[in-house]
Amino acid sequence: MSDAPEPRLVRATAEMVAERANVSRVAVSRAFNPGASLRADKRELILKIARELNYFPDRAARTLVSGRSHLIGVIVPDVCSYWESQEIDRLTTALQDEGFATLLFKTRTDYSMDEQLLAYMRGYNPDSVIAFVENVKPQTLTRFLDRAVPIYIDYPHPGETPLAEPGPVFDRLNILQRDGIEQAIALLQGYGVKRIAYLSGKTKSRANTARESMLCTIMAERGLEPPIRMVGDFGYEEAFQSTIDLFKVFGGAEAIFAANDVSAFGALDALRHELGLRVPEDVSVVGFDDIAQAHWKSYNLTTVKFDLEARVRALVRLILRRLNEPDAPSLEETLTTRLVVRGTVG
Amino acid sequence: MSDAPEPRLVRATAEMVAERANVSRVAVSRAFNPGASLRADKRELILKIARELNYFPDRAARTLVSGRSHLIGVIVPDVCSYWESQEIDRLTTALQDEGFATLLFKTRTDYSMDEQLLAYMRGYNPDSVIAFVENVKPQTLTRFLDRAVPIYIDYPHPGETPLAEPGPVFDRLNILQRDGIEQAIALLQGYGVKRIAYLSGKTKSRANTARESMLCTIMAERGLEPPIRMVGDFGYEEAFQSTIDLFKVFGGAEAIFAANDVSAFGALDALRHELGLRVPEDVSVVGFDDIAQAHWKSYNLTTVKFDLEARVRALVRLILRRLNEPDAPSLEETLTTRLVVRGTVG
Repeated sequence: MSDAPEPRLVRATAEMVAERANVSRVAVSRAFNPGASLRADKRELILKIARELNYFPDRAARTLVSGRSHLIGVIVPDVCSYWESQEIDRLTTALQDEGFATLLFKTRTDYSMDEQLLAYMRGYNPDSVIAFVENVKPQTLTRFLDRAVPIYIDYPHPGETPLAEPGPVFDRLNILQRDGIEQAIALLQGYGVKRIAYLSGKTKSRANTARESMLCTIMAERGLEPPIRMVGDFGYEEAFQSTIDLFKVFGGAEAIFAANDVSAFGALDALRHELGLRVPEDVSVVGFDDIAQAHWKSYNLTTVKFDLEARVRALVRLILRRLNEPDAPSLEETLTTRLVVRGTVG
Repeated sequence: MSDAPEPRLVRATAEMVAERANVSRVAVSRAFNPGASLRADKRELILKIARELNYFPDRAARTLVSGRSHLIGVIVPDVCSYWESQEIDRLTTALQDEGFATLLFKTRTDYSMDEQLLAYMRGYNPDSVIAFVENVKPQTLTRFLDRAVPIYIDYPHPGETPLAEPGPVFDRLNILQRDGIEQAIALLQGYGVKRIAYLSGKTKSRANTARESMLCTIMAERGLEPPIRMVGDFGYEEAFQSTIDLFKVFGGAEAIFAANDVSAFGALDALRHELGLRVPEDVSVVGFDDIAQAHWKSYNLTTVKFDLEARVRALVRLILRRLNEPDAPSLEETLTTRLVVRGTVG
């Protein structure tokens, strides 16, 4: 009778911890969520007692009871595509602060997403899914989600059909591209630039087509000829080759407007290191995104900025709003863009 | 009696799908794992029948039964720290192919990891945890894991104490840094370089201290003075400033050996764009990692390569081996490094 029970086998409950610490059940739950607000001394006490009792929250069991997995699915074509990797980094921190973990899913070949991957994802029952992959339609995606409402990033353009409406409910982060692109074109015009090339992203990407059509609209409004279209895929290599082709085969341009920063880097390197041209003296270059590398001295890129922090906050807000109102109609957040002037236009 | 049952409410089982498709229960499970090998026509048939029956595998329920969550925790200090983001990208694909999802956890402030985050992670009951954060000891980490055995990346150095032994069981990916560093120093010596600076990473990082001590060992073996030590933190900005200090305050160097590629980029940009020095004519620069940006023309960096693909394969092998042998003693995989010669030494 003197043997103490083996502590490893005792399954403590949150209620036991709450009682011993003389706090509410909710406080115990908050103590285990990094970022949930709770007085530091209270948290410390709860964690200390939890340790003594060998208590840990068990999400698998809680999922079955609450129906919430506390997992946020993030579907990406490629984590290391710079922009996405920086966004996932911040997003993971922000979600963690709200008690969610980030569950990464990678599509296999560029923009496609097959049903197999979706069925696989569904097995984890995420509370929400953010689709960085644009080419799976909300109709398809929602068919594979239980109660989660997916979030899409959209680039609305006046006069174009909005993303997949009518259809199932999905939430939406709208990026208004006009301001930043207009500022870039105005700056180029201010330096007398007329002949502008658009270095395309992947042609299947909605971000790319929205960017190109906004560029064409603004150039027309401002009395410019439509841009010369350069082949691209958002990557460095393709941009590098495409820039060489532009100057060696297609007569060159006074400015290159790239679909994203990484392809702007490829264009810059081709201009300087392969074609022997000076930037910005001979050719101007503008990017899109403002990733961390854009300010590195070798590039020092003038670019259209999405505000990453604002974007992450908007995504987190969409998730929390949806969990609070599971049956609300489509929710929206809207962000704008602006030009960041550095050294590649002038 | 003529009302058909509402299909959404029917909870089909894997057994029902297997029976209807005339396949084994295992085949059904494989059909939902992207990458698990299965004849294409068989997979298609199973998915078709699963769709008809409205069957999806449910991991939360399976977790409680099998004790396996099919989640692999990945603890990182910073996803967008280039090297890690590229590794996470490949790793996510490789794990998905084996039926696991990647669960990202981000530590809050550089290298620390508090118990709160660990307790939070434990709530998801990952099958395995890969610690890219080096400064949480296996003793601490295993206390917060149920049956999962953590994986550490280690940089063994003859004569140094190996990572935390004796202690709880953990698995280990060993990176032998000698070959690549020795090749780099030999190449520098071949070009007559004597005065070499080491651009440090974060001083708390085990990767950094291992790299520095291996560099010192090899330089001593080859009759060179110890390297000049430059302050750094693996980042671009700090490397940029530190390089300016080296030349403006501390007498400069003939070569800079950087703790990683990103800080080598910072050094290169400071040399060329701030100090007006030529690379490699005036100063040579060597990096470490061989990230994708290392071959971009503006940098074209000579660097010590970890093979990313080999590293990801080794990590996945460690996970699978451990799941097959939960009670095995510490498992190990070992990789080497080699020099990739580009344009910054000569």
